[in-house]
Amino acid sequence: MRTVYVNGDYVPENEAKVSVFDRGFLFADGVYEVTSVLDGKLVDFAGHCGRLRRSLSELSMNFSVSDDELLAIHRELVSRNGLEEGLVYLQVTRGAADRDFVFPPDDTPATLVLFTQEKSLIDSALAQRGQKIFTVGDHRWSRCDIKTVQLLYPSLAKMEARAKGGDDAWLVRDGLVTEGSSNNAYIVLADGSIVTRDISNFILHGITRKAVLACARKLQMKVVERAFTVEEARHAVEAFSTSASGFVSPVISIDGHEIGDGKPGPVARKLRDVYIEEMRKASI
Amino acid sequence: MRTVYVNGDYVPENEAKVSVFDRGFLFADGVYEVTSVLDGKLVDFAGHCGRLRRSLSELSMNFSVSDDELLAIHRELVSRNGLEEGLVYLQVTRGAADRDFVFPPDDTPATLVLFTQEKSLIDSALAQRGQKIFTVGDHRWSRCDIKTVQLLYPSLAKMEARAKGGDDAWLVRDGLVTEGSSNNAYIVLADGSIVTRDISNFILHGITRKAVLACARKLQMKVVERAFTVEEARHAVEAFSTSASGFVSPVISIDGHEIGDGKPGPVARKLRDVYIEEMRKASI
Repeated sequence: MRTVYVNGDYVPENEAKVSVFDRGFLFADGVYEVTSVLDGKLVDFAGHCGRLRRSLSELSMNFSVSDDELLAIHRELVSRNGLEEGLVYLQVTRGAADRDFVFPPDDTPATLVLFTQEKSLIDSALAQRGQKIFTVGDHRWSRCDIKTVQLLYPSLAKMEARAKGGDDAWLVRDGLVTEGSSNNAYIVLADGSIVTRDISNFILHGITRKAVLACARKLQMKVVERAFTVEEARHAVEAFSTSASGFVSPVISIDGHEIGDGKPGPVARKLRDVYIEEMRKASI
Repeated sequence: MRTVYVNGDYVPENEAKVSVFDRGFLFADGVYEVTSVLDGKLVDFAGHCGRLRRSLSELSMNFSVSDDELLAIHRELVSRNGLEEGLVYLQVTRGAADRDFVFPPDDTPATLVLFTQEKSLIDSALAQRGQKIFTVGDHRWSRCDIKTVQLLYPSLAKMEARAKGGDDAWLVRDGLVTEGSSNNAYIVLADGSIVTRDISNFILHGITRKAVLACARKLQMKVVERAFTVEEARHAVEAFSTSASGFVSPVISIDGHEIGDGKPGPVARKLRDVYIEEMRKASI
């Protein structure tokens, strides 16, 4: 049984509970981060902490736990669960208070929950086989840059893609791909350039996105940050997604159209290898 | 201390908890209803049950508790808390399961939580004084007809209105008012007609809205269900909102522009009185 962190306590997972009055439960008034663990060490922890601070700030959410304390909790949880490879999930909410759309008093303690998930990240069957993507409308709110727990639509979108025989969904707003259900989306054009949606309020500012684009530029690959259409994606020579848990994950079909030769492409495979190598070196 | 209902048990409110793995907490994968209580009896319970079933159905959420059982739980909670006037809040989520965007197995038990809130609904200071409204952009997802707990934006919108010295926010999509932060929005034109947004995926299908419009038609008032602009609202002769807890609540200013003579108008006051009278007769 896993050990879970809840508001200062390390407890067995079946005792890990929050109040029904928690604003995370009643209002989705919470933000989260997912940090990968390789060889028992945290991948790009500073990146995730930085984004967490931004999410909290955008929502005027008080949170008194320092980055150093968060690091210590992550490490303690990895150690207690003997986690070698997988994820650490962290969620902060505005705390528990009697239900009211108006924020509770500023001194209401935030809720902090962390738990681990064991997962084969390097030897991923999906990364080896390649993902089948289906596009669906992007019906989310317009502040997707804040990493809130309002994840119902991404979950519904993924289920819709699954129902069609796919692995995941790419979301489309005004004819343009924004991102995947829980990852950023990329295509590779015939000239070798990598195209991915530019940063705005419509997409998550992916920590893995940033690191992978840095890898690509280091490898002298051409990167273009702009919106692309579903039609462009279907006719791309390659496609892939990036996320903290999926790293770089090749795409082999979009809406039933085979991408390239229908196998994971060389750009995605190269970026995956280089990203993993870099992250392993820098993990803490 | 209140007694709260959690998954079959009646517990003291400080022991009312759900798993941190509950999909309501991790994914906002839950729906809710709020039913008013007058004279210790439930207002329009059938209406709220009907909308709950629709929300569950739209999200393919399994839930095995019957309307009769829900009624019994509502009544037991009202009785145990000696509630004469106030609200019963009900939330259903897709249950607890290890975190995954993919739905858990169909036999995962839904989570059911209910609690009460004491509140003066009839003698409402806000209804007597009238609300000051500020308009803000409607940045929510596009399935506002499903009553999900993705309420972060409505909460932020209400805080924004409060920061400007207002009581509540009206949300505006493409220049047109959709609804209030947690209520439906109405204006009255110079010819006496009542205008409110027509039913679509962009607004909640208010139970109180339906009952109040029925009252208006019974009173031979002209009702027009269509979108209206912020400009139209600012120049209306009257304005008001409806919700399960606010009944009919007059609006006296919009974005600092006084509505009518800056006092609760006769249409809103009449509708409030008639609605309360009708609901008192029909409550169970």
